[in-house]
Amino acid sequence: TEISLAPKEASFDRLKLEDLLKRRFFYDQSFAIYGGVTGLYDFGPMGCSLKANMLQEWRKHFILEEGMLEVDCTSLTPEPVLKASGHVDRFADWMVKDVKNGECFRADHLIKNSIEKLMNDKKVSADVKRDGEDVLARLEGFDDKDMHEVITRFKFKSPITGNDLTEPIAFNLMFPTQIGPTGDFKAFLRPETAQGIFVNFKRLLEFNQGKLPFAAAQIGLGFRNEISPRQGLIRVREFTMCEIEHFVDPEDKSFPKFSKIADQKLVLFPHVINWMEHQRRKSPSEMLLQTKMTIYIMFQKTVANETLGYYMARCHQFLMKVGIDGRRLRFRQHLSNEMAHYAQDCWDAEILTSYGWIECVGNADRACYDLLQHYKATNVKLVAEKKLPQPVDVDIVEAQANMALLGKSFKKEAKKIQSALQQMTSEQVTSLEADLLSKKLFNLNINGEAYPLTPDLINIKKYSKKIHVQEITPSVIEPSYGIGRIMYALLEHSFRQREGDEQRTFLAFKPLVAPIKCSVLPISANDQLVAGIEAVKEELSRYELSYKVDDSSGTIGRRYARTDEIGIPFGITVDFESVKTTPYTVTIRHAETMSQIRLEVSELGRLISDLVAGRQQWTDAQAKYPKFESTTD
Amino acid sequence: TEISLAPKEASFDRLKLEDLLKRRFFYDQSFAIYGGVTGLYDFGPMGCSLKANMLQEWRKHFILEEGMLEVDCTSLTPEPVLKASGHVDRFADWMVKDVKNGECFRADHLIKNSIEKLMNDKKVSADVKRDGEDVLARLEGFDDKDMHEVITRFKFKSPITGNDLTEPIAFNLMFPTQIGPTGDFKAFLRPETAQGIFVNFKRLLEFNQGKLPFAAAQIGLGFRNEISPRQGLIRVREFTMCEIEHFVDPEDKSFPKFSKIADQKLVLFPHVINWMEHQRRKSPSEMLLQTKMTIYIMFQKTVANETLGYYMARCHQFLMKVGIDGRRLRFRQHLSNEMAHYAQDCWDAEILTSYGWIECVGNADRACYDLLQHYKATNVKLVAEKKLPQPVDVDIVEAQANMALLGKSFKKEAKKIQSALQQMTSEQVTSLEADLLSKKLFNLNINGEAYPLTPDLINIKKYSKKIHVQEITPSVIEPSYGIGRIMYALLEHSFRQREGDEQRTFLAFKPLVAPIKCSVLPISANDQLVAGIEAVKEELSRYELSYKVDDSSGTIGRRYARTDEIGIPFGITVDFESVKTTPYTVTIRHAETMSQIRLEVSELGRLISDLVAGRQQWTDAQAKYPKFESTTD
Repeated sequence: TEISLAPKEASFDRLKLEDLLKRRFFYDQSFAIYGGVTGLYDFGPMGCSLKANMLQEWRKHFILEEGMLEVDCTSLTPEPVLKASGHVDRFADWMVKDVKNGECFRADHLIKNSIEKLMNDKKVSADVKRDGEDVLARLEGFDDKDMHEVITRFKFKSPITGNDLTEPIAFNLMFPTQIGPTGDFKAFLRPETAQGIFVNFKRLLEFNQGKLPFAAAQIGLGFRNEISPRQGLIRVREFTMCEIEHFVDPEDKSFPKFSKIADQKLVLFPHVINWMEHQRRKSPSEMLLQTKMTIYIMFQKTVANETLGYYMARCHQFLMKVGIDGRRLRFRQHLSNEMAHYAQDCWDAEILTSYGWIECVGNADRACYDLLQHYKATNVKLVAEKKLPQPVDVDIVEAQANMALLGKSFKKEAKKIQSALQQMTSEQVTSLEADLLSKKLFNLNINGEAYPLTPDLINIKKYSKKIHVQEITPSVIEPSYGIGRIMYALLEHSFRQREGDEQRTFLAFKPLVAPIKCSVLPISANDQLVAGIEAVKEELSRYELSYKVDDSSGTIGRRYARTDEIGIPFGITVDFESVKTTPYTVTIRHAETMSQIRLEVSELGRLISDLVAGRQQWTDAQAKYPKFESTTD
Repeated sequence: TEISLAPKEASFDRLKLEDLLKRRFFYDQSFAIYGGVTGLYDFGPMGCSLKANMLQEWRKHFILEEGMLEVDCTSLTPEPVLKASGHVDRFADWMVKDVKNGECFRADHLIKNSIEKLMNDKKVSADVKRDGEDVLARLEGFDDKDMHEVITRFKFKSPITGNDLTEPIAFNLMFPTQIGPTGDFKAFLRPETAQGIFVNFKRLLEFNQGKLPFAAAQIGLGFRNEISPRQGLIRVREFTMCEIEHFVDPEDKSFPKFSKIADQKLVLFPHVINWMEHQRRKSPSEMLLQTKMTIYIMFQKTVANETLGYYMARCHQFLMKVGIDGRRLRFRQHLSNEMAHYAQDCWDAEILTSYGWIECVGNADRACYDLLQHYKATNVKLVAEKKLPQPVDVDIVEAQANMALLGKSFKKEAKKIQSALQQMTSEQVTSLEADLLSKKLFNLNINGEAYPLTPDLINIKKYSKKIHVQEITPSVIEPSYGIGRIMYALLEHSFRQREGDEQRTFLAFKPLVAPIKCSVLPISANDQLVAGIEAVKEELSRYELSYKVDDSSGTIGRRYARTDEIGIPFGITVDFESVKTTPYTVTIRHAETMSQIRLEVSELGRLISDLVAGRQQWTDAQAKYPKFESTTD
């Protein structure tokens, strides 16, 4: 049911990839000897290194090159913080339960899977199928009532037992815990790293000498208690994410370096096409890909502002650098009913995998929602000062609490009332003053509670003030990267089978992210070669280049195949020529082209680290060093 | 009350350091705008980078150079895993509660603080003080009854309210949560990363082609719900740890590369001295430091085996590399009552800080405890095969369950009984057989439950087998690093005050770990210099070197002071000379020696990355490039 703008690799065989990933321990299910836990995965040596290399490149590409302020906040997060951010009340999925055994299913996934099953059932009528297709197209905007209606109308049951299902129940996706020994300090594991940045806003602004715009970034764990996770690394309960919060003047979201990326081409999939895609589903023949592409070209200027556009372009660059296939990448704009109510625009970088188009990066303009929420909850101003072109006289109207009387009437609540009064704008105070005059009463509303205030409790203070700066609550542009999902897509895109020998599978990684940079292969087990091997190992260590020595007895061609399988880009062979004279020489085999050169051991570290970082290309190396002809590949 | 083998820095002022760390945002309390949470800290840009550099060096020093297998396992851990490891039952501290308001205190900390207060009280008699000193010396070995006795005898109260205290209650230090929507899948946040490695043992052994010894390593978060954390980064509830599990034949713990470190000198503090130290506390005048040093020399060969010794030496090297002061580092051997019952030897790397000697790294020989525990819990064999010098005939005696009958008698328990029978050694089966013959009954004990088995339920099978390999459960040597603690010690050891100007404080980091490697300083705000600045930035980015441009209006000397404060080792100045001719040239100022050289911009990246990695020294650079004399420092 997914429409791809790019062709799928015809020969892709997910089972073969999964076999390779398990066998060479890229990753595997956690706690398998205890029966395993769905949605939890452990990374082995290959997966760890791949992930570390991706993270290092992310850090370089964003934090270093853009001069971002990195923070590292805790996963443990007190309840009030996530109450303010809206997660306690709204970070939930709808689930339905098997009425007999209590088994839980995510309601939208159950509907999607049940309809897809129905589509493949020859006994089901065309009318019902059309109805089902329509539901699929609208499913993302469904609430609990809509889903209940569908489950009832189609008579969907538990796919496992065939039992009836309950009405959809909201299930909060955060993992709860408590901090400290008393049990009454409630906390959650953070569902995203973003909130840690928002609560540090003041410190970060100060670190940046009070100036806007600036970006903060965080690399760390997120936790989501998924209802019934499937699809391997794509839907997991504990994952590494990289998030950026770019704080900017809401009235000026231009980006100084925008010209650097202005000519970059991205595949955009704006909400207009999104909407037409939904329409298309209703009557499949109406619209062709060709038409859609024309519309896409018409809507090239759909991104809300320069800052958001800049980050989308940089996102594209990052994904290309680590090795994502550009033909299987698109930026899909959210429909208005998909976005959070406060968001102004949102573009997901989606990558095409054998599971369909997968959301891997969100690029959203969150406006000033988060900072305002934390301000409301703490009464700590989260604002920046913006210099006015010229000083302005403003009339200030303030409502000051008479704390002595307020304390008598409201006891402990007095403080809360005082801070609510302090947070009122001049306009709000003016209207309060009018109420006090006319009705002798003002009903102050704090989080839905009404506090009746009488004139004796409040002094209205009015004065004029010359102001030089304006306080503004910055807007936030948030690019948010799911590293596990990108890694999985990368593994699919890097997977190859040798033509004519489909059993011989391998991974073609870019040197930048390859888990192991070099294999070190003695041509024979002869002791004469040991000194050469040791010299190579020492040289590579000096340049922090990872390597794997394969001194097993297989032929050199067989050993190359083993190293190709885990995507080692450079093979260093030590032969008898190597140790005949000093300084020692070795050959490097470039896995991608299978060509070889010969050079001194002392030149290895610098050359390979330049090739890995992209400061030199293999063709440069070929031009500089003599070619080596091997008969053994 | 701590005895130091090394002198404290006379001038160290913790408040001044804390002020610098807060002001330049190395780290600070988490969720401060919400009132903060004790034991949780957020790292700002400087702390993040310092930590990332330490972790990168750790990864190079251990994982890369020793060829370790890195894994990355989940923090969420199901209860049965931590039940098997012993954490559910025993990972607890004793706490006492204020009987009136319920406030909790860690019992041993309360006793220590109360006694220290008493020691400074002039009204307390010498007898009582001697008694208190004796308690302090023995406190680490105390159980709940001992502590209750002390609290009662000394009449200790809540230090906050003066109220009475409850008896000590065990409080488990793991954070509890649940996985999935049903609420009945109990889990904890891992208190250490080690268990993730143990449950992956089979995969890792296979990755290593079935060969021992090998080491696996993990860098990740650990969580401990401390009762009432104090002391900043030293006692926190969420922290980064680096752990190694080295799996080795229990009968051969020699280490192939031991000769490389055999001559290295470490300050050892073996348990004999430990014990004498305790004795000394009873009668302070009896033993002098001199005597102790003599004994230390006598006990140089106290480390249990080569593998443990090797890791201690490598630990020392790592701590030196990142910048710990060697005079404030010692390895303290655990007393037998401090060690877990299964541990064979344990040496803590302790670093002297203003809080006393702090345990920063544990180096323990854990024997085969963990692998055996997980085997018992899962019935999955966690063993390696060791080739025998020659094949051996062995007599096997096995107890096979008659599952049909066993199922009738024991229903669901039958499986458990079967696997318990399978786990029995030949010796145990022989004794079972004897019982069945003599008493017609064998009482099988599984976790304290007795299962009466009659002869009809069991077939005894005996046969002879030629075996070529022996199955062994490897011993585990575990070095475990607390990165936050090492970082805090490093910050104290790197803190300096300029002589004659004590207000001017700074951090003298090694280039390897410095959060920012270079400052880029235009000599004036003149537009002519912009092209030079841009060229420098681009060159540094190409080599992934972090930098901070300071184009503020202060004098160059003032700007150097600001960069010294955060420990930037190299200052790159762009002056009018720089852009007069192409290729551009700049000067580098070496913060430590304040000396300067002049070179081309295109040489910067290579030189500085060599200096950072230690492939070149500053003296090498001085020999190669012309000296630059500045009048402005």
